[in-house]
Amino acid sequence: MENKTIVSSIEDKIIEYRRDFHRYPEPGWLEFRTSGKIAAILMKLGYEVKLGHEVVKKEAVMGRPHDEDIANNVERAVKEGADPEILKRMDGLTGVVGIMDTGRPGPVLAYRFDIDAVEVDEAKDYNHKPYKEGFSSTHPGVMHACGHDGHAAIGLGLAEVLTRLKPEFTGRVKLIFQPAEEGVRGARAMVEAGVVDDADYFLALHIGFGNSGDIGIAARTGGFLATSKLDVEYRGRASHAGATPQEGKNALLAAATVALNLHAIAPHSDGATRVNVGVLQAGTGRNVIPDRAVIKLETRGATTALNDYMKKKALKIIEAGAAMYDLDYTVNEAGGAMSAEGDEELASMIKSIGREIGVEHIVDKGSVGGSEDATYFMERVQTRGGKALYYQVITPIAADHHSSRFDFDERGLSLAVTLHAEMAKRLLKRAHA
Amino acid sequence: MENKTIVSSIEDKIIEYRRDFHRYPEPGWLEFRTSGKIAAILMKLGYEVKLGHEVVKKEAVMGRPHDEDIANNVERAVKEGADPEILKRMDGLTGVVGIMDTGRPGPVLAYRFDIDAVEVDEAKDYNHKPYKEGFSSTHPGVMHACGHDGHAAIGLGLAEVLTRLKPEFTGRVKLIFQPAEEGVRGARAMVEAGVVDDADYFLALHIGFGNSGDIGIAARTGGFLATSKLDVEYRGRASHAGATPQEGKNALLAAATVALNLHAIAPHSDGATRVNVGVLQAGTGRNVIPDRAVIKLETRGATTALNDYMKKKALKIIEAGAAMYDLDYTVNEAGGAMSAEGDEELASMIKSIGREIGVEHIVDKGSVGGSEDATYFMERVQTRGGKALYYQVITPIAADHHSSRFDFDERGLSLAVTLHAEMAKRLLKRAHA
Amino acid sequence: MENKTIVSSIEDKIIEYRRDFHRYPEPGWLEFRTSGKIAAILMKLGYEVKLGHEVVKKEAVMGRPHDEDIANNVERAVKEGADPEILKRMDGLTGVVGIMDTGRPGPVLAYRFDIDAVEVDEAKDYNHKPYKEGFSSTHPGVMHACGHDGHAAIGLGLAEVLTRLKPEFTGRVKLIFQPAEEGVRGARAMVEAGVVDDADYFLALHIGFGNSGDIGIAARTGGFLATSKLDVEYRGRASHAGATPQEGKNALLAAATVALNLHAIAPHSDGATRVNVGVLQAGTGRNVIPDRAVIKLETRGATTALNDYMKKKALKIIEAGAAMYDLDYTVNEAGGAMSAEGDEELASMIKSIGREIGVEHIVDKGSVGGSEDATYFMERVQTRGGKALYYQVITPIAADHHSSRFDFDERGLSLAVTLHAEMAKRLLKRAHA
Amino acid sequence: MENKTIVSSIEDKIIEYRRDFHRYPEPGWLEFRTSGKIAAILMKLGYEVKLGHEVVKKEAVMGRPHDEDIANNVERAVKEGADPEILKRMDGLTGVVGIMDTGRPGPVLAYRFDIDAVEVDEAKDYNHKPYKEGFSSTHPGVMHACGHDGHAAIGLGLAEVLTRLKPEFTGRVKLIFQPAEEGVRGARAMVEAGVVDDADYFLALHIGFGNSGDIGIAARTGGFLATSKLDVEYRGRASHAGATPQEGKNALLAAATVALNLHAIAPHSDGATRVNVGVLQAGTGRNVIPDRAVIKLETRGATTALNDYMKKKALKIIEAGAAMYDLDYTVNEAGGAMSAEGDEELASMIKSIGREIGVEHIVDKGSVGGSEDATYFMERVQTRGGKALYYQVITPIAADHHSSRFDFDERGLSLAVTLHAEMAKRLLKRAHA
Repeated sequence: MENKTIVSSIEDKIIEYRRDFHRYPEPGWLEFRTSGKIAAILMKLGYEVKLGHEVVKKEAVMGRPHDEDIANNVERAVKEGADPEILKRMDGLTGVVGIMDTGRPGPVLAYRFDIDAVEVDEAKDYNHKPYKEGFSSTHPGVMHACGHDGHAAIGLGLAEVLTRLKPEFTGRVKLIFQPAEEGVRGARAMVEAGVVDDADYFLALHIGFGNSGDIGIAARTGGFLATSKLDVEYRGRASHAGATPQEGKNALLAAATVALNLHAIAPHSDGATRVNVGVLQAGTGRNVIPDRAVIKLETRGATTALNDYMKKKALKIIEAGAAMYDLDYTVNEAGGAMSAEGDEELASMIKSIGREIGVEHIVDKGSVGGSEDATYFMERVQTRGGKALYYQVITPIAADHHSSRFDFDERGLSLAVTLHAEMAKRLLKRAHA
Repeated sequence: MENKTIVSSIEDKIIEYRRDFHRYPEPGWLEFRTSGKIAAILMKLGYEVKLGHEVVKKEAVMGRPHDEDIANNVERAVKEGADPEILKRMDGLTGVVGIMDTGRPGPVLAYRFDIDAVEVDEAKDYNHKPYKEGFSSTHPGVMHACGHDGHAAIGLGLAEVLTRLKPEFTGRVKLIFQPAEEGVRGARAMVEAGVVDDADYFLALHIGFGNSGDIGIAARTGGFLATSKLDVEYRGRASHAGATPQEGKNALLAAATVALNLHAIAPHSDGATRVNVGVLQAGTGRNVIPDRAVIKLETRGATTALNDYMKKKALKIIEAGAAMYDLDYTVNEAGGAMSAEGDEELASMIKSIGREIGVEHIVDKGSVGGSEDATYFMERVQTRGGKALYYQVITPIAADHHSSRFDFDERGLSLAVTLHAEMAKRLLKRAHA
Repeated sequence: MENKTIVSSIEDKIIEYRRDFHRYPEPGWLEFRTSGKIAAILMKLGYEVKLGHEVVKKEAVMGRPHDEDIANNVERAVKEGADPEILKRMDGLTGVVGIMDTGRPGPVLAYRFDIDAVEVDEAKDYNHKPYKEGFSSTHPGVMHACGHDGHAAIGLGLAEVLTRLKPEFTGRVKLIFQPAEEGVRGARAMVEAGVVDDADYFLALHIGFGNSGDIGIAARTGGFLATSKLDVEYRGRASHAGATPQEGKNALLAAATVALNLHAIAPHSDGATRVNVGVLQAGTGRNVIPDRAVIKLETRGATTALNDYMKKKALKIIEAGAAMYDLDYTVNEAGGAMSAEGDEELASMIKSIGREIGVEHIVDKGSVGGSEDATYFMERVQTRGGKALYYQVITPIAADHHSSRFDFDERGLSLAVTLHAEMAKRLLKRAHA
Repeated sequence: MENKTIVSSIEDKIIEYRRDFHRYPEPGWLEFRTSGKIAAILMKLGYEVKLGHEVVKKEAVMGRPHDEDIANNVERAVKEGADPEILKRMDGLTGVVGIMDTGRPGPVLAYRFDIDAVEVDEAKDYNHKPYKEGFSSTHPGVMHACGHDGHAAIGLGLAEVLTRLKPEFTGRVKLIFQPAEEGVRGARAMVEAGVVDDADYFLALHIGFGNSGDIGIAARTGGFLATSKLDVEYRGRASHAGATPQEGKNALLAAATVALNLHAIAPHSDGATRVNVGVLQAGTGRNVIPDRAVIKLETRGATTALNDYMKKKALKIIEAGAAMYDLDYTVNEAGGAMSAEGDEELASMIKSIGREIGVEHIVDKGSVGGSEDATYFMERVQTRGGKALYYQVITPIAADHHSSRFDFDERGLSLAVTLHAEMAKRLLKRAHA
């Protein structure tokens, strides 16, 4: 396990990367400093780096922030050390792909790392290690509370290890740093930009989830729920509720009717389905017929087909609700993910690597408990005849994912780099090497 | 008041007519015996009699019974004394118009009498005069509980009086015997057949409403609520609720949603509006997604415009409810009436006649407490430049209109004939007479 | 397999029983002729026969018909050959338990046979064998369309076989003939009467389900959905919708609100749940605020706990709906069943018997596709430390269960008797026999 | 009309008062600078000044701001010139009552002036006179857009005029400066503090409403809708919508159900009623069962009884909505007003004064188009046997009330002072004067 030694030699650097990202967390589609840093390091390592429209199809972006927010965050990224030249190439679109081409014919192996942070205010007390050790978030209300700081660091560590192993490999490696996994908004736009269209293998991992002191592996993650995130806006006509109620077009009552009927969509006998109207906001003044209502909802399904069933029903109800109150409306797809299953062959490979390098705690199946848009990549690769795997590096966490005291045991970082690198050794091995 | 004497001479005959009709009550659009009798008497008096498609536009009929019911009632009418030849001319459509043409140029004066009964089971006890005196309903579940037996009798009495007064008159008289006033279903089809298109004057009256022993007149009836009666049927798809809920198209939930939203239609600042879903029936089996739902509703408005506002909103909600659950649906107009105001000129005339013939209790305004489809005739006549009046002959009643013990003081009958005849004398008077 | 020979010798008699029951189908809680016949035959075979309140707890009966229907059906049963003395003992409660006591200490083995018919009009054409061969239903609108005629016949055949095997046995046998399985209404009242409180083993089976020509066995039936059937009646106050809408207490709008919110009950992460409002009937007149509404609903769950979750939520919504419109209301439990799993030990036994007697088509698991109140018996027996099994005798059917052309291949009858009898031989075997 | 001359002599001062108040607008219950200024001037004029708990019953305050807002506004009031000593006496409660006692026995005459501003951002352009002339709002987002700056100025002008007329008077005068008329929140708390319990006469006026150049009077204002303003908060339990939907208590669906059913409250045959859910806000995250919902609603009625009918129905629905979803909830009364009719005697007096002083444009009836909590004072005075009047001084306005360009013709100010003073002369006149 020679590359384990390589990993050891850069372990401190990987941790440093992680803590740097932790200090400057950025929400989905605003990861300008993060992307800038990643791109700069990949370039220095000799990777071909693709950015902006090369890696993200703008029309397929879901949940894109307002232009003003984007401009502000670009500006801040510069102040916080991102290279303005690189930011310019990004043209307002975060995300990075680094390519290493061995020059030798062979398969293409793609890795995906998600890099966005969560809108959570990080805990400020001395029991919280990032605060105590001085690397906690400097961006109020934003925090790496799901380990994506670690994922980005793993990607950079892996980048370095792979350059050293390059002589042993055939084919090409693609390191995909994806924005906006939270809210499952980012993967689709990268997939639609074609970044995995040439991939024979696709690997993704998630760190964390551990309760006890053990570090371990869940070889295959299942139970990804397919999901759609929809933002609905109804626009009617305001009117004084006492004086001329008949002039109004009541967006609030439409939204109320729609919310009830969405939750009444019949379940499906093929498997679990879900719908949730998580937010409803309507009206401004007590004495005014509300002319505007916003609904934020999600549908889910145990399979992509089940989610499609729910989404189709939901759209019909949303449309009819507008018709019932004579409203204009828009539906924006604010996020989405598919269901997916990792390939058994790759899962076996991870397990065997784990055993070889002495990981004691190895399980067949894990769950990230919800939806993940890595499934877009997996589905694309598998549809085109490739193989894909999403596995978990189980490392103890200090508090639940997405909570203000989240932190993970950094020993998981080098294990993740090692596993990812070992997979490359097996999948891209030169015949004579 | 010479014609008062004429009326007196036939008072017994009028009462006899009324009791005959009372004995054989027929619900709306099934008044075959009633229409047959009326037509026969009018013919005998020398009136030109129009029937069937001449007086009713079939396409405009609202709330028409099933063909089988019609056939059965025609058959029964024959058994109960109606002339088969006349019934043949009617071709399944009840209603009669009798015309008396003086041959002298002059205005056209139309009178309308409604002739249908109510679906009420008549009281069978000796405190109820029709039962005690042997003229109570012989048709179980049907009863003249709103005085239309009296209206029909008044029409026939008037027909006889007018033949005697004919030499004094110019122009023409039209006696319109209208089916299906209950549920406000009959007038529209007669109006659309054009029966009052040539009328310069239109008169209608209602008998009853009295509490004390006095007989009196309400010269003008106001507060008619315009109304629409709608029957909605939703048709979806049944499916086993446990095994394949996703296959269903749920008509019950659509109907529930529609009922709630109909009742939530905003009121109107121009005046009173109403909506009522009076009946909702959906589904057959507990474990089946309901594929069929029926809603019976009505809208009302203090004016025709206000009712139109309500009806338009209602239709939009009904349509959207179908769309929400992907259903087929039909809306049938099962009844309707307009708002209307009588003309002051005719109201003054009635009052002055009342005073002349010694009626003590005369009020300006009365109300029939709801909707009346005589308003269709009024609106048509007034729109074409004519004048119309709906007045009330207030005569003591034994119990509320539409109750099983309803009866009215028959003295009101000859007063009504006298008033109607006096109006003719004033409106059709020959210059030299 | 000596008893197979015994069965063969009475095969014609079993078929005759079945055809007799098929000719005189009776709906749930009205199986007076059926119960009477069964009781008479059991008595003749020497069984101790328990009836009426001995076997059914009246307070626990769900969905009991009106007294008038019961009286009429008792009368008809006499005309159709039931023994009046036996009917008298039944005291209006159908259902029979026959007991055979070997006199030797040993376990108690209970069998359950459901005996009610379905409200379906039997097909009358020559492709339908019962019609062609002259044993189709003589009761219009009622039909044995789910094979319970077969179950009753199997019970009687088994009764005879077991008397012959009695010398080989220890302990006791209880043959339970249960009313009203359709609508899952009958088992609870027998369980609450204590009929299986002493049972060490409980066996039930269902016949049918086969598509092809093979006869086979499904050794264990799973996936029984626990279910509750609820009838809700809301009582408010009627009022004229145009004149005094404020006086009404609107039962229709309450029911509509409740229906929507019932369907919006959140699903449960532990497994499948269902709710269905299958029937909603409200209101009488279009212009009257509806004072009465009826809802018929069912909840289901993959487990008893899941159904309890749904039922509890449903009851809360139903109660709050009444409060919202200031209504009186009642909820009647019209049916119910639990989830249950058969014991592996008994399932293995059935499979091994099947193999021994040469049944080729044997599967581990089957489903009856819904709910079954045999689960009440199973739960009671298992809770008290006994073992229970529900298996299926798969025999070709002519059309779907509950359809008007349903019929099953009668070869299944003797297989069922054989299997049931073989189980007795294993479970009640005398040590030295 | 000697006092007209007095008024003329202080006209500039009244306008100056008005412009000062316009410059420092304060929303309801935050009128600390305004109240402080008023109190100081009244003291200087020799009035007995009552403040804080003497004039406002804290428990009856509706729509009170947060303590923090109150503290901030007190602080700002000091900076903007209010007397800290006076503010201290106010103890966080705005509103002022000034009393002038003639020392001679006689009736008590109370005047009410409302002093709060509206949450509107004042127009900043040179066509808007307050901006052009430099007295527009210095408080962003708050503006005197309904003329209450004028009302306060009228009160102070009247205070000065009455001191000069004092020798002619008997009895006592009470000048009531009321907070929080907007949202109809302030009057109740002053009435409950008893400030008009001794009043024989009560006068209030509103300025504005004019379209053309004329200045005029509407002698009596009718059509005040009684109203209740309710804030509802539902509190349930959040839960992950995908993972554990069954754990949630869904406040959003409760609010949606309640909104629909509130709008479906039956109308009342006694007169116009209204309900409006103007604001509904529920939920925070798309994937979380919403645990909190807020509804802001109002009911209205043409009479106090009609509003009570609506409010009572609304409260029942709100309560049942909580029960349906097992929620905690609170309802806060955020405002309210009654219906009221001014006394004919006082209306005639105003008209005759108007004619005497040469006002050309005088109408009998006016409307302020909605609700007014002066009605609380009126109802209290009338109930205790006194007489009350609410009239309008019609003066041209530059834009609609409550719009950002609202301004009124300041000529109305001295007319209002004159009318109010003339009323005092008539109502408090000394016998020998």
